[in-house]
Amino acid sequence: MMIEIERKFLVDTNLWCPKDSGNLIVQGYLSTDKERVVRVRIKGERAFLTIKGKTQGISRIEMEYEIPVNEAEILMQMCHDFPVRKKRFVEEIHGMTWEIDVFEHKNAGLVLAEVELSAENEKIELPNWVTQEVSADYRYFNAWLSEHPYATW
Amino acid sequence: MMIEIERKFLVDTNLWCPKDSGNLIVQGYLSTDKERVVRVRIKGERAFLTIKGKTQGISRIEMEYEIPVNEAEILMQMCHDFPVRKKRFVEEIHGMTWEIDVFEHKNAGLVLAEVELSAENEKIELPNWVTQEVSADYRYFNAWLSEHPYATW
Repeated sequence: MMIEIERKFLVDTNLWCPKDSGNLIVQGYLSTDKERVVRVRIKGERAFLTIKGKTQGISRIEMEYEIPVNEAEILMQMCHDFPVRKKRFVEEIHGMTWEIDVFEHKNAGLVLAEVELSAENEKIELPNWVTQEVSADYRYFNAWLSEHPYATW
Repeated sequence: MMIEIERKFLVDTNLWCPKDSGNLIVQGYLSTDKERVVRVRIKGERAFLTIKGKTQGISRIEMEYEIPVNEAEILMQMCHDFPVRKKRFVEEIHGMTWEIDVFEHKNAGLVLAEVELSAENEKIELPNWVTQEVSADYRYFNAWLSEHPYATW
């Protein structure tokens, strides 16, 4: 995808609970610069190098390239600060794919839900377990969380 | 290649002259951080995303991934400062491959020759047109030149 359009919400964990065991994601940042984020992600048996541009509204340029896991492991060691670890759960709701990220380690306690849109003004039906929208709040960007973990807020 | 071992020299342009028309290289930087350089390079009809680690002696980790040229063009616009432009000439000398970079635009006047080694202590025969060795001088790193062009030295 070249343009990522995404809305992000906090999750009420009294109302949401995981339906499966999720997938572990570990990701680090070679650049946390808001205008040119460079992310290394290992997700199970696959790894990706992703570049994200400046967020404009709820859109940003995103380029993703699959890379060998062993190379991603080396790149991960070259990253800023500590990697972000989270379990990702995927749910189809009202025809939309929601990704619920349950953060671990220094970001434990944070649960975010994201949904990708095909247009900024696309109407979506919100599940009952989302609360505050945080799409534009940079503190909830994973790059920010890698340097300012939730435990320190 | 996972480890790049390289020596770099200034070139006496009274003694060296190009034998062909060379290849234009345009490259920009998503990160100029010395410990995690992220470079976007367009070289003719091909493009690459390259990550380089901290230089230790004359060695550094290097990971390179080929990417579509149209995506590289978008990434180039997201880069720091201005792209570095140079003509690259390749010569085989005493069994070694030398790359001679003739810089353009704001780095015009600078000509560097690089040779890749298979070990740090590998013996090489220097061509008569190289002068001072600048392998360890960060000012001659292309990432540095992208922010501090030769014309401003």
